[in-house]
Amino acid sequence: MTTATPVDYVLEGKPHQGLLVHDGSGQPKPTVLAFHAWDGRTGAHDDFAHRLAALGWNGFAADLYGKGVVGNTTEECQALMNPLVGDRARLRAMLLAAADAVAALPQVDASRMAAIGFCFGGLCVLDLARAGAPLKGVASFHGLFNPAGLPSVTPIKPKVIAFHGWADPMATPDSVVAWGEEFTRDGADWQLHGFGGAMHAFMNVGADMPSMGIKYDEKVAARAWAGLADFLNEVLA
Amino acid sequence: MTTATPVDYVLEGKPHQGLLVHDGSGQPKPTVLAFHAWDGRTGAHDDFAHRLAALGWNGFAADLYGKGVVGNTTEECQALMNPLVGDRARLRAMLLAAADAVAALPQVDASRMAAIGFCFGGLCVLDLARAGAPLKGVASFHGLFNPAGLPSVTPIKPKVIAFHGWADPMATPDSVVAWGEEFTRDGADWQLHGFGGAMHAFMNVGADMPSMGIKYDEKVAARAWAGLADFLNEVLA
Repeated sequence: MTTATPVDYVLEGKPHQGLLVHDGSGQPKPTVLAFHAWDGRTGAHDDFAHRLAALGWNGFAADLYGKGVVGNTTEECQALMNPLVGDRARLRAMLLAAADAVAALPQVDASRMAAIGFCFGGLCVLDLARAGAPLKGVASFHGLFNPAGLPSVTPIKPKVIAFHGWADPMATPDSVVAWGEEFTRDGADWQLHGFGGAMHAFMNVGADMPSMGIKYDEKVAARAWAGLADFLNEVLA
Repeated sequence: MTTATPVDYVLEGKPHQGLLVHDGSGQPKPTVLAFHAWDGRTGAHDDFAHRLAALGWNGFAADLYGKGVVGNTTEECQALMNPLVGDRARLRAMLLAAADAVAALPQVDASRMAAIGFCFGGLCVLDLARAGAPLKGVASFHGLFNPAGLPSVTPIKPKVIAFHGWADPMATPDSVVAWGEEFTRDGADWQLHGFGGAMHAFMNVGADMPSMGIKYDEKVAARAWAGLADFLNEVLA
């Protein structure tokens, strides 16, 4: 029976809280961490952990901002995200520590872990790949491709897939091409699923600011999730 | 029981011969045309028609060169392909006529047809989409993205997917980006599955000229074929 268990862990000396959705058996299982968008670990984000469990894995909704901390306005979200995007070394250390905390849980098979992320969380999982995290695979959804400006651990170990809206103004075709060059140079097994006309936040139900290039897209979201299911079946098998 | 039936048809007044792989029931079924690479309708190309049948559809190995005509050397292949790539209006007319011939077969549900193609054949299926062919979907494998230099029928009707090796020297990232702009402008529902490090001809068992950027890739071929299966399930449902 699917069970959702809050999990407390410490990053930078401060309490954080994620949500582990597991089968209640207590047996270690392959586990997929989900990293949130700029707003933090919201209920909508926790839904992805449940959807990962429905695919047959443990799902873990990670928290990078601190227990209960979410942004409710654009300004609040920027105030939470920008310090981390602006200090990629700090972000890398937090990401590796979060992955370590999950790997230590008794319900988790630490040898079979993966990570997915959305927007800011997409950048996070690409940074985990760059950092040499002991993950089998990482998947970015409408993530940012900006290089970390730090040395990567090469060859990049996790398999990598990016689900990308081609009309995403936050990740232009130029940045896609540059990312492809970076991950090819660094020896990654990488894939890109590009979706014509899809905007930023295409996975986020309710996102609807097309003039800003931000819009939920039910059809594309379904295609991307199906692609994720195939990817996880490959990398966590 | 799977049955393979040679099908004769006429293009430009000359005999051509394809291969229809169907279930032998005589009932009209959704059908996927497969367009060959520069070498023509070889036995290896016919295999794709059998593989399409294994996915549950009729598979049709099309012939654009003439009955029994295949290239056996680079020079022969170029001599067969270049006149068609060099006259896209002529190619368009041939492609539409081939699709019409298949649509007229009693085993074919003409309202549910799709097309796939490899290398030159990938260019062909993108041209069918540009031409307004009555297809539900087209899929290009390591295809060429060169624009046709002809007006497209817009909005582009078939759903479109391209499986692309990012290290394919015949289809550079610049041409991918330009193609995305073209198909977005022309209203296509398009997707791109890019594979880092994969070269031209990644679907072609035995292709092995890495210094030319040409190489079979078993892993990428499997991923691309799985992506095709999902795509056909969506567009032919």
